[in-house]
Amino acid sequence: MAGTIRGIRTFDIRFPTSRELDGSDAMNPDPDYSASYVVIDTDAPDEVEGHGFAFTIGRGNDVQTAAIKALEPALIGRDLQHTLDDLGGMWRELVHDSQLRWLGPEKGVVHMAIAAVINALWDLKAKRAGKPLWQLLAELTPEQLVDLVDFRYLSDALTPDEALDILRRAEPGRAARAAELCEGGYPAYTTTPGWLGYSDEKLRRLCREAVDLGFRQLKLKVGADLADDVRRMRIAREEVGPDIRIAVDANQRWDVGTAIDWIRELAPFDPWWVEEPTSPDDVLGHAAIAQAIAPVRVATGEHVANRVVFKQLLQANALSYLQLDAARVAGVNENVAILLLAAKFGVPVCPHAGGVGLCELVQHLAMFDFVAVSGSMEDRVIEYVDHLHEHFVDPVTIRGGNYLAPDRPGFSAQLRPETLVEYAYPDGPVWTSNGRGRMHE
Amino acid sequence: MAGTIRGIRTFDIRFPTSRELDGSDAMNPDPDYSASYVVIDTDAPDEVEGHGFAFTIGRGNDVQTAAIKALEPALIGRDLQHTLDDLGGMWRELVHDSQLRWLGPEKGVVHMAIAAVINALWDLKAKRAGKPLWQLLAELTPEQLVDLVDFRYLSDALTPDEALDILRRAEPGRAARAAELCEGGYPAYTTTPGWLGYSDEKLRRLCREAVDLGFRQLKLKVGADLADDVRRMRIAREEVGPDIRIAVDANQRWDVGTAIDWIRELAPFDPWWVEEPTSPDDVLGHAAIAQAIAPVRVATGEHVANRVVFKQLLQANALSYLQLDAARVAGVNENVAILLLAAKFGVPVCPHAGGVGLCELVQHLAMFDFVAVSGSMEDRVIEYVDHLHEHFVDPVTIRGGNYLAPDRPGFSAQLRPETLVEYAYPDGPVWTSNGRGRMHE
Repeated sequence: MAGTIRGIRTFDIRFPTSRELDGSDAMNPDPDYSASYVVIDTDAPDEVEGHGFAFTIGRGNDVQTAAIKALEPALIGRDLQHTLDDLGGMWRELVHDSQLRWLGPEKGVVHMAIAAVINALWDLKAKRAGKPLWQLLAELTPEQLVDLVDFRYLSDALTPDEALDILRRAEPGRAARAAELCEGGYPAYTTTPGWLGYSDEKLRRLCREAVDLGFRQLKLKVGADLADDVRRMRIAREEVGPDIRIAVDANQRWDVGTAIDWIRELAPFDPWWVEEPTSPDDVLGHAAIAQAIAPVRVATGEHVANRVVFKQLLQANALSYLQLDAARVAGVNENVAILLLAAKFGVPVCPHAGGVGLCELVQHLAMFDFVAVSGSMEDRVIEYVDHLHEHFVDPVTIRGGNYLAPDRPGFSAQLRPETLVEYAYPDGPVWTSNGRGRMHE
Repeated sequence: MAGTIRGIRTFDIRFPTSRELDGSDAMNPDPDYSASYVVIDTDAPDEVEGHGFAFTIGRGNDVQTAAIKALEPALIGRDLQHTLDDLGGMWRELVHDSQLRWLGPEKGVVHMAIAAVINALWDLKAKRAGKPLWQLLAELTPEQLVDLVDFRYLSDALTPDEALDILRRAEPGRAARAAELCEGGYPAYTTTPGWLGYSDEKLRRLCREAVDLGFRQLKLKVGADLADDVRRMRIAREEVGPDIRIAVDANQRWDVGTAIDWIRELAPFDPWWVEEPTSPDDVLGHAAIAQAIAPVRVATGEHVANRVVFKQLLQANALSYLQLDAARVAGVNENVAILLLAAKFGVPVCPHAGGVGLCELVQHLAMFDFVAVSGSMEDRVIEYVDHLHEHFVDPVTIRGGNYLAPDRPGFSAQLRPETLVEYAYPDGPVWTSNGRGRMHE
C-alpha cells in the first residue's frame, strides 16, 4: 500500500494527579502525570495513525513536546512502507543525528522524544499488520530482530552473533509459549497500596484488597522517614503474611551509605527487592549497595538513560531485576537491545509501569520477552498501578493478578479523543475550570 | 542594594560554521555552533544584567532555549541579593524541582538549561562585585565554597569535611598563586590544527603555526579512518618534533575493543592522551580502555552528564585527565563539586573548550582551581580553539600559548548586542540572506 508520512501532531496532555496525592513518593511529592503525545499522520489510503508518547510528571511537558516536534523534519515526506520495513535504520538516523545528539547524547528530553516517535511508528506498523505489538515482534525472525538493534557501545558485552544465538535458542518454543500467554496471562505486581501520601489504615486496606485480587507481590514507597517506613513495612507484612512478596522503592532518595543502613533496618520484614536506592546514573553505587544488602536484591531501570548504562549495571552485578521503561530509552528498538542484554546476563526483566499508559506499553515488551527472548516468566512480574487506564482506547486488562495478553492491533498507546481535548494543557477544561490548573505552575 | 529578578530573555543564536568545516570531527561532521542564550533582568538600580548560555551544535537549539525559558517561573520576583547570596540554595531548588527532574534527572536539555541560568546568575554576581568570576570564587571562604556544593550522591567518594580539608590546605597559598596567575597566565593547548575536514597541507601548516605561537600541546581529531589517522598523526609528529604533546580525540566514535586496537596503532607516534574513546556514559568501558592502553592516558568529560558520572570515572581509575565542561553539567556550582572530586582523587582537570564561548567560561574555572582548590598548574592545560571569540564583549586573550587572567568583572559570558541580532535563528540576516539558513534544517 503506497503512502508517505505527512507530518506529526503533538499534544501537551496533563492529569491533575497531585490534587489526590496518587503517585506520591520520596522524590516526587506532587506529580501531575502527563503525556507528551504524538500522532503520526500518513496519506496512505488505510488512514491508520501511529500513536505514541513520552511520560512526564508535569512541569516541562511543554519542553518535551517541543522536542518531539523537532523530530518532524526527519519524518516528513518519507515513504511509509520503506520506513516501517526498516525501523532499525529509522532508529539509527534519529538517535545519531549529528546535531541533535549533542543535546544528550542518548539521554534526557531528546532521547525520550525519539522514544515517543519510534513507539508511534511501531504502533502504526502493528495496526497495519492487524496484530498486537507483542505478537508482531514475536513473529519476526531472529535476523530481523537483531537488525532492529544498534550494537554501538554494546559489543564488549553483547555481539550480534550472541544476540542471534539467544533468539534462535528461543525460537522452537515460541508457539507453545504464545498459547500459554494467551491462556493464562503474565504475572503483575501492584504498587497501588504503597504510596507515601496514604494513611496507615488505607495502606492496610489496600494491601488486603491486593491479595484478594490475586496479586502475589506488592510494593511500598520508602525513603522519606525511616521510622515511618519500618511501621508501614510492618503493617504490610502483618497484613499479607510471609508468602506475598513485598518490594520497596526509594525513588533515588539515598546516598550509597544511607541506602545500606536504611535497608538493613527494613530487612527483618523480608523486602523482596529494593528499587532505585540511589542515583540512576550510579552504576558503581548500585553495585556496592547490591553487595552490602544481599540477600535483599536491587532493582532499577525506570530512570536509566540508555542501553549503555544498563550494560554496565549488568556487567557490574549491580542489579538482580532489570526494570526497563517503555518510553525513557528510545523506544521498542532500544528495549529489544536491553532484553537481549538481560538475557545474556541471565537477569529477569520486570518492567516499570504506572504513570500514564506505561502499563499499556510495557505489557507488550514483557510478553515479547517471554515468547521470543528469555522464554521464561520465572521470577518475572510487570508493575501494575490502577491509574488513568480509562483514558486509553485499549486499556490493560488485569485478572487474578495477571495481565491478559492484548489482542487488538497496535501498541495499546492510543488515548481517547475526548481525553486529548479535556486534559490539554493549559487550555483544556480540566485546567481552566476554577483556575486550578494555573496554581500548579 | 534592593532589587528583584524581573524575568529572563532567551535567544536562539546560531553560527553557520558547517559552511567551512570548522569544528568537524568523527561524530560531528557538520556542526552549526550555537548558543541557547539567556539574559537575566532585574529592577535593581545598577541595571546590571546576568548573561549565560548553553552550547549546542545546531538543530535542537530551539528546544534548549524553550527549556531555559521553562525555568523562568522559578526565578521571577525573587529577591536579588538573597538569591545571589545563596546560589547553593538556588542550584538545589532548580536541580531538584520535583517535576522537572523527571526529564533528566540531572542530564540532557533540562540540566544544560540550569547550567545557562546558574552561570548567568554567577555572571551577575561577579559583575555586581566588580570582579572577574575566578577571583570572586577564589576569595570565598572554604565554608562558603562547600556550601555551593550539593553532596547528594557524592558522599561515598567525597564528604563535606573532606572538601573543607582540601580547600583549607590550599588557603595559605591563594594570594601568591593569584599573583603568579596574573603575571604569567595559564597554559593552553590548541585544537585548531586538528579538525578532520582539513587537508594534510593545512594540518602541517597549522601544526607549525601552533608551535610558533607558543603552544606546547595540540590535539588531533581521529576516529573516522585508521589509515588517515596514522598518516595525520605522523605528519603532526614530524612537524612538531618529540617535545610537543599531541593529544587525540575520537569524539565517542569507538566501541571498547575498537578503541583499544585503534590506539595501539597510533601509539608509535606517542599520543599524550586519547579523548572520548567511547560513550561518555560508559564508566566501565573507559576503565577497560585506560587499563589496556597505558601508558597512553584517557581523558573525557565534555559529554559527561553530571557529577555522579564523574565520581564513578574517578572511582574506577577510568581517566587520567578530567575535562569539565562549563555548560553541560549544571554550571559553576556543579563544577566546584567536580573540581573538589578531582582534587580528592589527584586527577588534573583540563577543561573542554571551543564551541561558542566555552573558552571564555572555562578559563575562570581552571584559574579558580589553581588558586583555591588543586593549587597546581602541573600537567594542566585549558583547551583553546580560535573560533567565534570576536562575538564576545570580553573575549579570551592568549599570549605565548597561555590564557591571560581576565580582569573585567563577570564570567566573560556576554555576546555583543549586534551578534544577538545578526545570528538570531531563523530570522537574523546571516540565516535569511540567500536563503542559506533554511538549507541547514
